[in-house]
Amino acid sequence: MFHFTALVTCLSIALYFFTATRVAKARSAFGIRPPAISGDPEFERVFRVQMNTLEWMPIFLPSLWLFAIYVSDPFAGAIGLVWIVGRILYMTGYSQAAEKRSRCFGIQAAAAVILWLGATSGIVWRLIHA
Amino acid sequence: MFHFTALVTCLSIALYFFTATRVAKARSAFGIRPPAISGDPEFERVFRVQMNTLEWMPIFLPSLWLFAIYVSDPFAGAIGLVWIVGRILYMTGYSQAAEKRSRCFGIQAAAAVILWLGATSGIVWRLIHA
Amino acid sequence: MFHFTALVTCLSIALYFFTATRVAKARSAFGIRPPAISGDPEFERVFRVQMNTLEWMPIFLPSLWLFAIYVSDPFAGAIGLVWIVGRILYMTGYSQAAEKRSRCFGIQAAAAVILWLGATSGIVWRLIHA
Repeated sequence: MFHFTALVTCLSIALYFFTATRVAKARSAFGIRPPAISGDPEFERVFRVQMNTLEWMPIFLPSLWLFAIYVSDPFAGAIGLVWIVGRILYMTGYSQAAEKRSRCFGIQAAAAVILWLGATSGIVWRLIHA
Repeated sequence: MFHFTALVTCLSIALYFFTATRVAKARSAFGIRPPAISGDPEFERVFRVQMNTLEWMPIFLPSLWLFAIYVSDPFAGAIGLVWIVGRILYMTGYSQAAEKRSRCFGIQAAAAVILWLGATSGIVWRLIHA
Repeated sequence: MFHFTALVTCLSIALYFFTATRVAKARSAFGIRPPAISGDPEFERVFRVQMNTLEWMPIFLPSLWLFAIYVSDPFAGAIGLVWIVGRILYMTGYSQAAEKRSRCFGIQAAAAVILWLGATSGIVWRLIHA
């Protein structure tokens, strides 16, 4: 069973959902009315945090689950938690200034790449030993 | 087996695919040539409907499946159908005017949140009782 | 087991990840600083390639897996490879000129639609014969 991976999946969705609610709040705060997605640098940064989290979801979620299936559920959950923490730091940094997003971006990128590498290695190993 | 959830997954993909084809049609109708994504408010609303549906896919699909696995397949399918209907109403409303998108947005948001809450509760319950 | 489908999933993530790294490179090459996402037609084309690949991920990945589960794992993997090749050709074409993206776009669209049709047929068949 994959309870840890399932729980981390729910937590990552909660984080992503939170980045989206911040865009809704920033819309009213800066008077950016839909369907506009630009007009104020601070709004655009908040918007880009949501977009960037969205952009990483199809990298993170499938890699997380394939890692869980082909390598280990608790390890997948642990690395997934690192990804979420990196994402939270990235969100906080980017919201303050575009320059502050880089370092924490590396944490979540490294976590996602480790999940992808582990999953791919596990799959190739099974295909060879099938 | 998760036949109902699988079928609702296919239906939600069909709906999302449809929102994307409307953007392609609106591109020719309003003369917005790629890679531009702005230039006419009506085009931008049609574009934002696709984008917003895309933004909700990583919330909806994993929550739907974890709800199906940890709670119930037919219930997941039923709530998923409510989400799809809410999405269709949201699409129709937003295409007419940005103000008309709010009420139906709540329907699909509620359906997605119920799926997420059910899935998370189910996972936590299993982790405690494991 | 779904080893072929799992491997093609990892390959599609790698391709998508590559389209994202090209945006980062194009940002420095054309001096488009975050959070801006426009300002140069060549940058915008590279950005749209990533966005369009992102837009197709929630169509491709669930259809791929439901096809694998309800129809066949090796066939899902093979059609998934066609999708990836179509995506690479689309990326190369669109990066050169917006007009060059159309033909290869059809290849990946056809592959995704076949996966969706196969998955949906398989699910409906099972629901009827359950």
